[in-house]
Amino acid sequence: MILTVTLNTALDLTYRVPNLRPHSSHRVTEVIERPGGKGLNVARVLAALGRPVTVTGFAGGETGRALRAGLAAHDPDGLVTDALVPVAGATRRTIVVVDAVTGRTTRLNEPGPLVSTAEWNALLDRYDALVPTASAVALCGSLPPGVPVGAYARLVRTAKAASVPVLLDTGGEPLRRGVAARPDLVKPNAEELAELTGSHDPAQATRETRRRGARAVIASLGPEGLLAVTPEGRWRAVPPGLVKGNPTGAGDSAVAGLLDALVADEPWPVRLTRAVALSAATVRAPAAGEFDARAYEEYLGRVRVTADPLPS
Amino acid sequence: MILTVTLNTALDLTYRVPNLRPHSSHRVTEVIERPGGKGLNVARVLAALGRPVTVTGFAGGETGRALRAGLAAHDPDGLVTDALVPVAGATRRTIVVVDAVTGRTTRLNEPGPLVSTAEWNALLDRYDALVPTASAVALCGSLPPGVPVGAYARLVRTAKAASVPVLLDTGGEPLRRGVAARPDLVKPNAEELAELTGSHDPAQATRETRRRGARAVIASLGPEGLLAVTPEGRWRAVPPGLVKGNPTGAGDSAVAGLLDALVADEPWPVRLTRAVALSAATVRAPAAGEFDARAYEEYLGRVRVTADPLPS
Repeated sequence: MILTVTLNTALDLTYRVPNLRPHSSHRVTEVIERPGGKGLNVARVLAALGRPVTVTGFAGGETGRALRAGLAAHDPDGLVTDALVPVAGATRRTIVVVDAVTGRTTRLNEPGPLVSTAEWNALLDRYDALVPTASAVALCGSLPPGVPVGAYARLVRTAKAASVPVLLDTGGEPLRRGVAARPDLVKPNAEELAELTGSHDPAQATRETRRRGARAVIASLGPEGLLAVTPEGRWRAVPPGLVKGNPTGAGDSAVAGLLDALVADEPWPVRLTRAVALSAATVRAPAAGEFDARAYEEYLGRVRVTADPLPS
Repeated sequence: MILTVTLNTALDLTYRVPNLRPHSSHRVTEVIERPGGKGLNVARVLAALGRPVTVTGFAGGETGRALRAGLAAHDPDGLVTDALVPVAGATRRTIVVVDAVTGRTTRLNEPGPLVSTAEWNALLDRYDALVPTASAVALCGSLPPGVPVGAYARLVRTAKAASVPVLLDTGGEPLRRGVAARPDLVKPNAEELAELTGSHDPAQATRETRRRGARAVIASLGPEGLLAVTPEGRWRAVPPGLVKGNPTGAGDSAVAGLLDALVADEPWPVRLTRAVALSAATVRAPAAGEFDARAYEEYLGRVRVTADPLPS
């Protein structure tokens, strides 16, 4: 199985409203409730691809209870194993308000529960027991209050000691510390790359990220696709034309695509093709964070992967 | 005890954000979670005034569970009895986004669960058993999907048959039908009055509302206070100057003030004074739907109630 870690899980609520106007009252016409947080999104996509996956992280309160019930309800094939660690605080909510006319989105993110030292240690015990049985590990998203900023570095080291490939997808200081622990793969977006390295040139920033410890860097450049810088080579993977829709969850689908091909021992161009095709198929799906399976099959044949020349 | 009925209960979430901008992402800096829906707000205020109160209505799902837990947690003196009827659907959420700089609010209201005929009948059984033991009944707020539009008319008739004073606080078609069943008291705002009667003149609209069946009409006119038209006389009750703050829940506090004085057999001027003072003290409180007890005591001496001349 693939193990995904989501320390700051969330109950994701998508609200459709006719037209969001500050300082007025809105009747929500449609409510979609989903287990969320990046690692849970990655797990849902992996399960849809037929991969067994185990999820860990924290869950607590009535929102945590709703999240765990949703995990089971959205897993018809029984491919997702819930190994979440209970906490006293309540799992946060995130709210995505979708304007019914324009499709544009407004996000409200709660901060997340305060995690105690005992709860963090319980997570480490759970993680250390799961890692040796995993074919790959994905460490995803922000840290809730109370979790040490070096959390991902600790989790990366454990995976490496067990020789399990580990992917890190986070930002800010947790990314900086995590990269120094030498993960196999990081997947920053342009903004996270710039914050980490100080450079707004993706070619330079990815090179600098590798120098800081990441074995391979897959930079997600939005509509321009992925830039991969690895010990085996450099590639660009580009989606088929402009894909219109809701980009929520597209980055998580890219992580799922990378892992799906990684555990099948596919070479980089196949990994990148799956990542970009899944990402585009997620933008195309009507519900945030889900992917259009037919569009995915179609995009697989239309993603362009090209070797990227070494920078001078 | 006083019985309050809230057919469309809600888990009320107040989010503080620095500055709400459509189509961008916001970190919520503070989350306040409260049991809500008008009748639950009325009950909370009555309990704070020392009145035993029983609440009924519907609650379901994880949000319903959180709501019931919150009812118990916010009732230090054990004055609130939970007689909510379980439903299969989930209790709705309402979200009030408060701009931390300006204090202005943006509301997002979920529609509420679909109530089945069996669930509605269970509510009627519960209500019919409670009414004979009540000193007054308040019927508050909107109807969730599935509840017949004549619901309040049915509930009014039961209270009247038991000779228990009944107050109705709702809008639209449920108000129109409810008024025809001859409630003792209705408390519409200017907008609800205009929708019911077609008249934007409060004097004319209150007279017309009485003609349609309401024994007494207490029209809430926002910062201008209350206009009362009753068989015992007509009064205006005006708050002490402009009260600045968050008006969320001010109308529910007015209902609580009316009921508090009604069950103590106080005359109309006292009822109106308490209603306006509580309403103003609610606008002044920092958290939506709570009231500032010191401000309430102070306002009691400063509300002006004047007899209103009969319209020509």
